[in-house]
Amino acid sequence: MADRIALDVLKGKTVFPPPVWLMRQAGRYLPEYRETRRRAGGFLDLCYDPAFAVEVTLQPIRRFGFDAAILFSDILVVPHALGRDLRFEDGSGPLMTPIAAEQIERIDVSGFHERLAPVYETVRRLRSELPETTTLIGFCGAPWTVATYMIAGRGSPDQAAARLFGYRWPDAMRTLLALLADVSAAYLIRQIEAGADAVQIFDSWSGVLDGESFGCFCVEPVAAIVKQVRAAHPQVPVIAFPKGAGSRYVGFRKATGAAAIGLDWTVPLDQARIIQQEGVVQGNLDPQRLVAGGRALSDGVGAILRELGGGPLVFNLGHGITPETPIGNVEAMLDQIRRRPPR
Amino acid sequence: MADRIALDVLKGKTVFPPPVWLMRQAGRYLPEYRETRRRAGGFLDLCYDPAFAVEVTLQPIRRFGFDAAILFSDILVVPHALGRDLRFEDGSGPLMTPIAAEQIERIDVSGFHERLAPVYETVRRLRSELPETTTLIGFCGAPWTVATYMIAGRGSPDQAAARLFGYRWPDAMRTLLALLADVSAAYLIRQIEAGADAVQIFDSWSGVLDGESFGCFCVEPVAAIVKQVRAAHPQVPVIAFPKGAGSRYVGFRKATGAAAIGLDWTVPLDQARIIQQEGVVQGNLDPQRLVAGGRALSDGVGAILRELGGGPLVFNLGHGITPETPIGNVEAMLDQIRRRPPR
Repeated sequence: MADRIALDVLKGKTVFPPPVWLMRQAGRYLPEYRETRRRAGGFLDLCYDPAFAVEVTLQPIRRFGFDAAILFSDILVVPHALGRDLRFEDGSGPLMTPIAAEQIERIDVSGFHERLAPVYETVRRLRSELPETTTLIGFCGAPWTVATYMIAGRGSPDQAAARLFGYRWPDAMRTLLALLADVSAAYLIRQIEAGADAVQIFDSWSGVLDGESFGCFCVEPVAAIVKQVRAAHPQVPVIAFPKGAGSRYVGFRKATGAAAIGLDWTVPLDQARIIQQEGVVQGNLDPQRLVAGGRALSDGVGAILRELGGGPLVFNLGHGITPETPIGNVEAMLDQIRRRPPR
Repeated sequence: MADRIALDVLKGKTVFPPPVWLMRQAGRYLPEYRETRRRAGGFLDLCYDPAFAVEVTLQPIRRFGFDAAILFSDILVVPHALGRDLRFEDGSGPLMTPIAAEQIERIDVSGFHERLAPVYETVRRLRSELPETTTLIGFCGAPWTVATYMIAGRGSPDQAAARLFGYRWPDAMRTLLALLADVSAAYLIRQIEAGADAVQIFDSWSGVLDGESFGCFCVEPVAAIVKQVRAAHPQVPVIAFPKGAGSRYVGFRKATGAAAIGLDWTVPLDQARIIQQEGVVQGNLDPQRLVAGGRALSDGVGAILRELGGGPLVFNLGHGITPETPIGNVEAMLDQIRRRPPR
């Protein structure tokens, strides 16, 4: 097998210049993505059609030669495969019918993998179509983050509905999170068996949890997923991304067993170095620096390379790339990371 | 002067049971507030009419006997007094005309204090109408947080517009923040001279800043305000509330010179103890625990009292009380803090 440097780094090796990929790199900032999306129809059609999903996953690899590709999908296909309704409307994000506490015991997991078969097929095709040196990353949402959408029925800035649900019905919440952890682990294992080299668990809303809730609603379910994935595939690195975890990033690797930790852009680099002493880190440029370009971009990239380049680092953004990002700024960033002279 | 225990604690004294007040305690969860608001008309009419503003500030003191009252106003009266337009529409929050980078140099500070005269009058009346033992807290928004609204023209979950502005036009941003720091310091000094015992600086959006930006857009302007207030009134404690600062809470007191630090609800209590070793802390119950009541509430209150009650603590929420909060839950919380038997 050819060297996959992103995979090597995720397993603990230090490589400089570091491998790089961007969260949401298959996205609306790319004209070819917008064109494929237009042809596919709805967002879920794109996720569930292997031909389209493979195409958009490959687009940023062709254009930029990123060191890793991430499966194109959505974290909410998991509750969708559990029989919850899901639709995406332009401008309002995902919409679901909110789940009630008493419905949680009745969630039916039969048919889960059958419904996700197109995702596994996408992973299989990707592994055969990607360059040998490109690391293929599968993913799922963390149970807490997936639960916030299932409970509120939509996104919200502070996840007040899910926090309240967890306080009012802690047993129902634990049941839901444990169920999501089990099916998510099974989902990641199938992705690995279809060809994923590594997997990432996105806990986009872990940052809204208070001290006690963070332990039982974020750390425990993520640790449960990691444990099951490692039992089945000990060589496959798991990246945990507890966005907004703040001071709780320190120790998160040990508490969850994850191989690598994704850092959001608010993690200061001196703190990131402490976290890197515990293992591999991934991140963490502010996506708005990539929109701005110029000095803000080169200063931000330079600081990350300087502070974190001496240890195991997968260069990434601290959150998904935004639709407004100029493609020329992505190129400039890559030139700087790869130490090529400016174009 | 009678003992004001909240003020004593803000100056560094440990008192148990701790004094307590709640951010946004004059608010929509109170029927008497909703009634006054209805009579006043718009939200800004409430802020700028001393009779109404005094009335709603006093309501939660009468009902619950909180140890501190906070001036009823809004952080956006500062840009409003600088001549920026401001309106509040139900459901969409504050709306302003976004400021352009080239307009910043032309901001006119003349007439600032005249426009804010009703606020100073409110403080004067409050100090004479409040019980002698009630600490009166004045406040302003931190420059970064005020700037996010001036730049975007409205609230947003991640303040992308202001972050981008700061990256594109760092000099204009620094000019704006320095100007806001100066006028905010003058505003707080006038509040103190009208009778405020302590003042709080709300940096509600500090948590979205990356490592470098946090230093220059949050810490520096807040430190500039504290320095000016302390020079004029060295005995008056300044509370800084860098909401969402995460790992950056540690050292924030020293970096800004604030007497006390407001902790949001995501700060874990072991971290809060470290911050308390640096000085006074205020917080940090999740407002959703207060909505939920029962075990979630008593566990949360109990943990804060146990972990932080041995040092200087002003008990508070980690963010504003929400309109859905049952009044009975506020009473239960106060009974628990004040160690009275359940009603």
